[in-house]
Amino acid sequence: MDAYKTLREEAWEANLEIPRRNLAIYTWGNASAFDRERGVFAIKPSGVAYDELTPESMVVVDMDGAVADGSLRPSSDMETHRVLYRDFPCAGGVTHTHSPYAVAWAQARRPVPVFGTTHADHGAEAIPCTAVMDADAVRNNYEMETGLLIVRTFREQNKDPSLMPMILAAGHGPFAWGKSASDSVYHAAALEEICKMATLTLNVNPRAEPLPEHLIKKHWERKHGANAYYGQKKG
Amino acid sequence: MDAYKTLREEAWEANLEIPRRNLAIYTWGNASAFDRERGVFAIKPSGVAYDELTPESMVVVDMDGAVADGSLRPSSDMETHRVLYRDFPCAGGVTHTHSPYAVAWAQARRPVPVFGTTHADHGAEAIPCTAVMDADAVRNNYEMETGLLIVRTFREQNKDPSLMPMILAAGHGPFAWGKSASDSVYHAAALEEICKMATLTLNVNPRAEPLPEHLIKKHWERKHGANAYYGQKKG
Amino acid sequence: MDAYKTLREEAWEANLEIPRRNLAIYTWGNASAFDRERGVFAIKPSGVAYDELTPESMVVVDMDGAVADGSLRPSSDMETHRVLYRDFPCAGGVTHTHSPYAVAWAQARRPVPVFGTTHADHGAEAIPCTAVMDADAVRNNYEMETGLLIVRTFREQNKDPSLMPMILAAGHGPFAWGKSASDSVYHAAALEEICKMATLTLNVNPRAEPLPEHLIKKHWERKHGANAYYGQKKG
Amino acid sequence: MDAYKTLREEAWEANLEIPRRNLAIYTWGNASAFDRERGVFAIKPSGVAYDELTPESMVVVDMDGAVADGSLRPSSDMETHRVLYRDFPCAGGVTHTHSPYAVAWAQARRPVPVFGTTHADHGAEAIPCTAVMDADAVRNNYEMETGLLIVRTFREQNKDPSLMPMILAAGHGPFAWGKSASDSVYHAAALEEICKMATLTLNVNPRAEPLPEHLIKKHWERKHGANAYYGQKKG
Repeated sequence: MDAYKTLREEAWEANLEIPRRNLAIYTWGNASAFDRERGVFAIKPSGVAYDELTPESMVVVDMDGAVADGSLRPSSDMETHRVLYRDFPCAGGVTHTHSPYAVAWAQARRPVPVFGTTHADHGAEAIPCTAVMDADAVRNNYEMETGLLIVRTFREQNKDPSLMPMILAAGHGPFAWGKSASDSVYHAAALEEICKMATLTLNVNPRAEPLPEHLIKKHWERKHGANAYYGQKKG
Repeated sequence: MDAYKTLREEAWEANLEIPRRNLAIYTWGNASAFDRERGVFAIKPSGVAYDELTPESMVVVDMDGAVADGSLRPSSDMETHRVLYRDFPCAGGVTHTHSPYAVAWAQARRPVPVFGTTHADHGAEAIPCTAVMDADAVRNNYEMETGLLIVRTFREQNKDPSLMPMILAAGHGPFAWGKSASDSVYHAAALEEICKMATLTLNVNPRAEPLPEHLIKKHWERKHGANAYYGQKKG
Repeated sequence: MDAYKTLREEAWEANLEIPRRNLAIYTWGNASAFDRERGVFAIKPSGVAYDELTPESMVVVDMDGAVADGSLRPSSDMETHRVLYRDFPCAGGVTHTHSPYAVAWAQARRPVPVFGTTHADHGAEAIPCTAVMDADAVRNNYEMETGLLIVRTFREQNKDPSLMPMILAAGHGPFAWGKSASDSVYHAAALEEICKMATLTLNVNPRAEPLPEHLIKKHWERKHGANAYYGQKKG
Repeated sequence: MDAYKTLREEAWEANLEIPRRNLAIYTWGNASAFDRERGVFAIKPSGVAYDELTPESMVVVDMDGAVADGSLRPSSDMETHRVLYRDFPCAGGVTHTHSPYAVAWAQARRPVPVFGTTHADHGAEAIPCTAVMDADAVRNNYEMETGLLIVRTFREQNKDPSLMPMILAAGHGPFAWGKSASDSVYHAAALEEICKMATLTLNVNPRAEPLPEHLIKKHWERKHGANAYYGQKKG
């Protein structure tokens, strides 16, 4: 019997959403699901095509980065996921993709300004972009350092990962998280759409202005916090 | 027996067209159908995914904004729909989406110039863009104020909503209407295509000129008014 | 018995290719097939959605523009097709679409430079763009005048419609023709792809240079004329 | 019995990937599979649509460019494939497409800078672009000269085709190769995605900088060479 059956299924479902939402081709992305109580997460195996994935093929990893269960190697980005689970208490799922518009902003090394309400619905501030990692960090443990760089960017900019569930790793691409694996892949898809809209906005008006604060706040609060009124009341 | 069966089905069909025409991902759009005689409209429930919608899940709302029939919360944009039905006598259906090219023009806060006949076929003038809503209006009743801002924009610019069935809410996105819900989602799709063509036109020629008036008028009159000759004769 | 069965089927097949190749949404395009011996062509009925078309619904029109057979109104662009068949002896099929990249170049009112071999494979020169039609011509018979403007553009620029099977009608969109209806819709699809590539080329290098003549000529002659060696030998 | 059954199937499978990955419309691309021991490769027949291809229709060609087996004409680009197999010892498969973003960079005649890790995962340097072929070479044997120009570009720039499996032929489009036909079409798809990301990066930031060397090297070495740790251990 598989003690991690539900966790693996959750991770598998989230990974399948990646190609379904056109967030990565081939094997260029990965999602994981975290069980904070047991201190393990299930993640995509490295280099396996999405249509060959099964729930059983998901690799269960503990908080030391050791494989707790599974016969395959975990995603090479596993250490980044691990650091995000460790340092972001809100994270129950993490998704990394190479979706083209989000990658473009990461490669351009620009935070994404809040140009409109689609953005504000998902975060009440610019989507941050890390600095480019220096050579020492790369030499050490590149994927762990990617996680540390993300965490440091949030701390230095006084951002709360439960309010801004996405970031661009400079020169690389997007990372997103959420309460669950499914939530994290939703944020990855929202990020791609927001980056697409921001790119087209600059096409139409290279000097486009961000939304004023009162509108950003309003849209964020429609969907988040005590006075949210979007969606159906929960049970 | 459901007294609103036909109205609900009409609204449901229009909502399904939104993802089918790639006008919104997830739950990012909504359509409604209006029964002007009975003074009620059927609208998408808030936050429910398109593929989970059924005709029965559509929420019937009266002209005071109260739920007349249905067990779910209506779309959070319900008040905008209500104002448009109240103040635009031509509206039998309303559609709001977050389609990326239309959002880009809304975020760039630019009316869409009549660059060609595809545009002129659907409106003989620039597609208007509202002003950005001020903080007082946002505080009051944001969604109702969005409707009022749209209506005010039409009045101030002397535009007739039966001749220009679409608008961009600045910093937000497109709203479209029509004789029926199906007609309104058609206008939302046409608006996205027109905005895509306008964006690409600026890519090819940043100083592109609008179409001269005689061509705008001709294309509009091919499809609209007493001398229209596009399509098949009715009845 | 239907004396125009084959002609109607040919036109119907070509019309179905329009949405299948993403060259138009809704009813925004039309194709026709010409029987030069009998002096009639079969064309899409006006304003009917592609998925409702049947071979029987195609309208057969004679060279005076009168309906020879069929119960529906022909496409409102019928007169343009008629003029092209009359004045371009090479035309056995005509297709008009509103494909977005070709429309963008038409709206930008720019001929498409031969940036590469994809273009040269289909025409050894820039794709022409007409002038904007003047008010008198529009008043007269707009669709016929569109055809006349296309023919005049070819004459004035000494272009041969059998060697350049496509044009942009300024402020409107693309028209393409070919030996058959199927050939004409192929040219409409090639035109859209060429215009997409040209737009992206300008994105990458706003001062991109056309291909030198010796390469244009080579690619054209690989596929066309006495020494063509592309494809399989014909029976 | 078909002595080339496996080779033909490999080539056929790779050719089917071309439209499936949106790398070419109609017949605008071709892939081949090489059997280095026997000195033959199987290639797409010229001008045949992808959905009409069968394994049997693949044409087997020897290293003099003569048809060794098959009843159809080989792709008109056959000579380019032949030269690449002859001069690039690493090549077991070759793919040529007209994918629009890669064509745009070829038409813009610009090597693709390493803007990010998606690129570095597939090659630790800019993707080269050949010079425009001169008139003498075109007159001689155009397709063979295309291969020679590619080979010369690699030699002059001291590039190793086993480390950089793709190039842009100026004014024409992309060529890619790999250990197998399937590997070559994967590289053609990666190239298109890299070119799309590079184009969007320039849209967001026209002065975007390439990735620093330490990050390029790191990503390349994650996937390639003795210390690679991406993917699963082989048998």
